[in-house]
Formats: sequence, structure tokens, C-alpha cells
Amino acid sequence: MNNLELISSISRTSPEKIILLVIDGFGGLPDPVTGRSELETARIPNLDALAAKGICGLSDPIAPGITPGSGPGHLALFGYDPVECNIGRGVLEAVGIDVPLEAEEMAARGNYCTIDEKGIITDRRAGRISTEKSSELCELLNGISIEGIGIKVYPVREHRFVVVFNGKDLQTELTESDPSITGVAPLEIKSLNGGAGGKAKLVSEFVAKAKEILKNYHPANMILLRGFSKKPHLPTMQEIYKLNPLAIAVYPMYRGLARLVGMDIAKTGTTLEDEFQTLKESYNKYDFFFVHVKWTDTAGEDGDFARKVKVLEEIDAALPVLTGLAPDVLVVTGDHSTPSALGGHSWHPVPVVICSKYCRTDGVKEFSEKALLAGGLGRIRATEIMPLALANALKLTKFGA
Amino acid sequence: MNNLELISSISRTSPEKIILLVIDGFGGLPDPVTGRSELETARIPNLDALAAKGICGLSDPIAPGITPGSGPGHLALFGYDPVECNIGRGVLEAVGIDVPLEAEEMAARGNYCTIDEKGIITDRRAGRISTEKSSELCELLNGISIEGIGIKVYPVREHRFVVVFNGKDLQTELTESDPSITGVAPLEIKSLNGGAGGKAKLVSEFVAKAKEILKNYHPANMILLRGFSKKPHLPTMQEIYKLNPLAIAVYPMYRGLARLVGMDIAKTGTTLEDEFQTLKESYNKYDFFFVHVKWTDTAGEDGDFARKVKVLEEIDAALPVLTGLAPDVLVVTGDHSTPSALGGHSWHPVPVVICSKYCRTDGVKEFSEKALLAGGLGRIRATEIMPLALANALKLTKFGA
Repeated sequence: MNNLELISSISRTSPEKIILLVIDGFGGLPDPVTGRSELETARIPNLDALAAKGICGLSDPIAPGITPGSGPGHLALFGYDPVECNIGRGVLEAVGIDVPLEAEEMAARGNYCTIDEKGIITDRRAGRISTEKSSELCELLNGISIEGIGIKVYPVREHRFVVVFNGKDLQTELTESDPSITGVAPLEIKSLNGGAGGKAKLVSEFVAKAKEILKNYHPANMILLRGFSKKPHLPTMQEIYKLNPLAIAVYPMYRGLARLVGMDIAKTGTTLEDEFQTLKESYNKYDFFFVHVKWTDTAGEDGDFARKVKVLEEIDAALPVLTGLAPDVLVVTGDHSTPSALGGHSWHPVPVVICSKYCRTDGVKEFSEKALLAGGLGRIRATEIMPLALANALKLTKFGA
Repeated sequence: MNNLELISSISRTSPEKIILLVIDGFGGLPDPVTGRSELETARIPNLDALAAKGICGLSDPIAPGITPGSGPGHLALFGYDPVECNIGRGVLEAVGIDVPLEAEEMAARGNYCTIDEKGIITDRRAGRISTEKSSELCELLNGISIEGIGIKVYPVREHRFVVVFNGKDLQTELTESDPSITGVAPLEIKSLNGGAGGKAKLVSEFVAKAKEILKNYHPANMILLRGFSKKPHLPTMQEIYKLNPLAIAVYPMYRGLARLVGMDIAKTGTTLEDEFQTLKESYNKYDFFFVHVKWTDTAGEDGDFARKVKVLEEIDAALPVLTGLAPDVLVVTGDHSTPSALGGHSWHPVPVVICSKYCRTDGVKEFSEKALLAGGLGRIRATEIMPLALANALKLTKFGA
């Protein structure tokens, strides 16, 4: 019996409500000058109060030392084994823009990029062209036809788009054309099982035709593809946890992830206030709420320590809206750390606090990476958070007689 | 996907350098009089400074309660599952003296021992005869021939030697002839699958002939065999981690272990100073250094608390040579605890500190079993140390999108 089967065998519906607030890229590293991390620098009285009230700890999204992408980071928080259930980037992008994928379809994430006259990539994001411009170009690419596969291209946001290939026996084991750096040409797409023939050739033909069509559309005069993948078959949160879950997220990828595990997706706006307002309005209709806050991660990715501190303070200031709902269980954590010092996702364990009437509070009074080390949760795996949240909401019965 | 496959899928080469300093038998237990452990008794300002600078914790080599041998203890530190990849003592001794084992060969560790006129063991180590004497006796044993198997005997150090049996379908599932105590006769070698016939009989024949040859060579008038084993097939550290690793160890077993996982083996002397000097001289040519220090374990095994304290102080005093190289990542830990109070390996978790620019330091200021309990690593498995070291050296990319 794996962990999900165990939980599934003892989960039950209860009136209690759970809010899982995911602050993307939550944990950080000390500023070399002050020696204090983003959380230690920010004025966050409401988070400090939650630390004092709840049970605290640090969680490894996958395992010590492993830096997770957003997909594995969130799946682990939802209680799914993030290695076993790894989801391709293409699928994530597709479900995030409400593109219904069928079992036989293969999605890839696309970037418009800029190449010079020699075919060398000079900008992997084509100067972050507008979503409107990208939409026009996607219409052009939708005109491409290749014998043997169906092709649909959808704009996502700025330079990003999704291609969905439809055909028999599409193999997702393909190398990516995005070299992840500039100064080189896009890579040839090959089968990971060897060779550039077969289905790999059809995808390469698409890229070649796209290059021809885009040649006069500088800076978006080429495309890069990565994350070839098909939709996985995951048991839903309704099935496993007997929850009625709602996802509230501004960015498509996080809505897409939530949809893959069966959550309803709320319509919301573009700000934290919008998200919290949506939560308030939906509060009576669901018993589980995944609320995703992106901007801490964005600041961390940009290496902007001060902005990450500011975003943390903004989240803290907005928290009373959320705590005012008096959820039976409130979990505040992240999908991974994004220290400004590293300018990207990292392996560092992620702060977590669980507040409930039954959480068995510890002595922690301050919300920081260092203070949480003394917390009652200790160092846990992210997949353990969901069972703990359910238990605190009295949604798990006894295992065994 | 197992853990090594996961790491292998995200590892990359980077210019950063890692030093893994393994202080054999590192952890201890309090002296019953003072209430302080060896680490708490020793004056170790440099280790204390590392604790203050790095991220600290305690690691279980295999699992809580399990006392590891040197083989599993080290394999776990190298990131390999120590239960799945268990390596026989015979193989370890063989590879440690540069005996090239072929797939069909079976190695056993041998001891010269002393038996009395009744055949009862009075000294399991034959008074620790000199390596020279042992070499002469091994030459005599090399004259033994048994139909159906090839036999080669190699001296190791003092009373220890290796026998390599060569033949078709050699079964390593054999009981050992070493009873591990004195006052009894050597045990008969039997197949673990039942019976003393078949290949077990051939090995017993070898022992009987050796007894006959050695009868006039008191104190080395008999042999004991244990650890019948064949060479395992482990993926190398180059393959998994994309490292260029070097092992620096005075004692053959540790070099042998390192060789099994693909490390280059440095020529070094017989002292700690020799080892650190070798490290300095090789520092530009590798990006991973396994440095093994034996004497803490030897003192612990001898139940010599004061000597273990002294060895710890000597290591501490020599540490600036190592820290002076300014490795990007420095890990100081042990393969297991060897408390003087127990006079042998133990199950107690092992102190560990990881120092790097990105380690996310904790509040620990002192290097001791007790102080490290408050460390940021918490209590980890030894197999998690290698991924953490790689992560801190920026040698692991993101898992998943």
C-alpha cells in the first residue's frame, strides 16, 4: 500500500475547512551583509503570530539537496509522490490555459525567440513580445500542416505558447530544441531512444516550417520547444481525500496543476487582494482551498532581495482577510525556496506552519528559516503536509483496529 | 526511479570543489564520570568554527538503531543505498590492495591466528605478526592446489590476508570460519543453503591444507576466513554525479571502497599530515575529494576515551590546512559512531556539518553530538549528505519543470 492508498483508505468528509496558502519560492538565504534572510528582514507580525499559534517546521519538497520545479513542488504539497508523478512542462502549460488534452495528445512548451542571420539564438524570449503579438503569430503557426499529425498552437503569455500534437503513438521521449542558453543555434529534436527519424522528424518539420513562416517577424523569428509530454492519470483529491477542493491562482501553471488533481478552478483577478477576495466569496462552497501567491518567487528569481522582502510584507499585511475566515486548518508554506542570493529555485527546505485547534503548538514565536528549526514538525517531506492538514481537520479516521 | 537515478538525471559538472572529510568512528558517548563525550571533552576550536559557519545535524548511516560496518558506512556517505549495495569484506580487502577481481572470482578475508594443541583459538590475530612474516606465510599458502578451483593468497597488513578463489559458479553464501571469539575452535565452513559439500567443501579443503602447512609456524599456526564475496557492479561517481573524484586514505579498505565507486586513488603516506599534504598537491586536478581519517575509530575500538580525544584534537589542529584550500563545499562527518564506552562501532547517529556559501547556516556554535541536535540539517540519512553536498556545489539542476 503506498501512501496515497493508505490515506485514501482512512479519509472521510468532515465539515472542517482547510486553507493551504502556498507562497511560491517562500524560503531564502541570508543577505551577505546583514546575515538576515528575506523572512528575517521583513516585518511580518501576522506570520510571526501564526508561528506562535501553530506547529512549525521545514519541509523538503522532494528530498534533501533536490531543487524542485514548480510541478513537483506543488504535487508534493498536494500529497502526491513528486518523482513518481512527474508532469511534463508542455502538459502544465496546456492545462494552465484550459486546453483540454486528450490521452493521445502530446503537448510542448514553446518560446518565441530571436536568432541572428547565422541562426544563432540572441534572445531566448524574443524580447518578451506582447501576448497580443504572440497570439497573431500563433495564428500563423496554426496554418502549418504536416502529414501524419494534427497541430494546434495556443498563445500563453508574452513569448510563451503551447503546441499540441495529435496523432497515433506520439513518443514524448524527445530531446528539447531549447538549449537554455544564447549564443548557440536551436538544437535538433531527436528521439531519446536514438535517431532523428520517426515522430521526432515530424516535430522537426514543424519547427522548420515555423522558422520559414517567422523569418520576417524579428524579434520573434524562431521558436524553441521543450517539455514534450502527455497528460498523466492521477487519482483526484476528491477520490483520495474526499475533499471538495478549490484552486485560486493568478498564473496559469498553478491552475493547471490543480486541475490535474481534480480541483475546481476559481475565476480570480491579477492581484493578491483579488485572490483573497475570491477566497472569501467561495468560502461556503468548498472545504479545501489552495491559494497560490506567485510574486515572492518572481522577486527571488530576479535576485531582488528587497522586493522579495516587500512582497512578504504585503502578504503579511493581507493575511487578516484570510485568518478572519477562521479556517479550521490553515497551512502556510511554499512549493520550494527561491533565495534571492541564488536567483532561482533552490534545494533548501521550505518553512511550514500548520494552525488548528489541535495542532499541538511548539515554542516558536517568529516566522523565519532559523526560528522554525525548533518547531514541532521538525524536518518533514512536503508530501507529509497534506496528511497532517487532513488530520488536523479531523478528516482522517484511525488506521487499523 | 530510485534515488541514484534521480540524482543522475539532474547532476552536472561545475567548477566548484567538494571535500568530504570522513573522520572514522566520529561520534561518541559521554564519559560516565564527566558526563561529556569525546567531542565535548576535546579542545576543537576549528571544528567549533565550522559548526558555527556551516549547517549542522546528525545522520543515520543506515537507519536508526542499525550499526554499520565500514563498507555500508562509506557507501552511504558516497550516496549509495548501503543495504542494497552491500559489499563483502573479502572484496573490500582485495580491492584495497589492488588485487584486480574478475566477475567469477570470490574473495575472502583471512586472519592468521594461534591455536593450541587441542585446536582451540588462543589469539585471533596471531600476536599481530609482522607484514613481512605474513608475506612469507602467504607464499607457502600459494603452493596449495585444490582440484576445481584456482587459489591466490595475498598478504594485507600484519596478520591479515586475502584469498581469491577462482572457479565456475562459486557460491558466496558460505558461513565464516572465524568465530569472532577465542576459546573455541575455528568453525566449519558450510553452505548457507545447507550442507558442507560442493564449493563449501573445496574451501574447507583449502583451510585444512593451510592448517597442515602452518602447523610449525606458531603463533601463526592456523587461518580464519570470513566475508566470502564477489565484486558488485556499482555505477561510478563519474556516471552518477559527473564528478572527477579522488580518494585519500591511509588504510587499504577505504581506498578499496573508493575504487569500487570509481574514484581515483591517491598515493599518500601514513599520517594525517601526509593525507592533507596529498590533498593540497592534488587539489587542482579533481573536483571531489574523499579524505579518510582512521585513528578516531581505532581509539574508540580500543575503548580508549583519552586517545580518541587526543586524535580529535590532532585532527582539529590540522584542519586549517584543509580549510585553507577554501573548498566551495566542505563536509565533515563520519562513517559511523565508535563510542569509547562501547569499544566498537555503534548505531548512534553521526555528527555532520556542511559548509558552503549557500548552506543556510543555523544557530549551532559548538561541535558536539548534543549541540548539533539544534542544527539546520536535523536528523538525516547518510545517503542524503552527497545530494546536499552536490547541491551546495551547484552541481544539481532542477528536477521537473
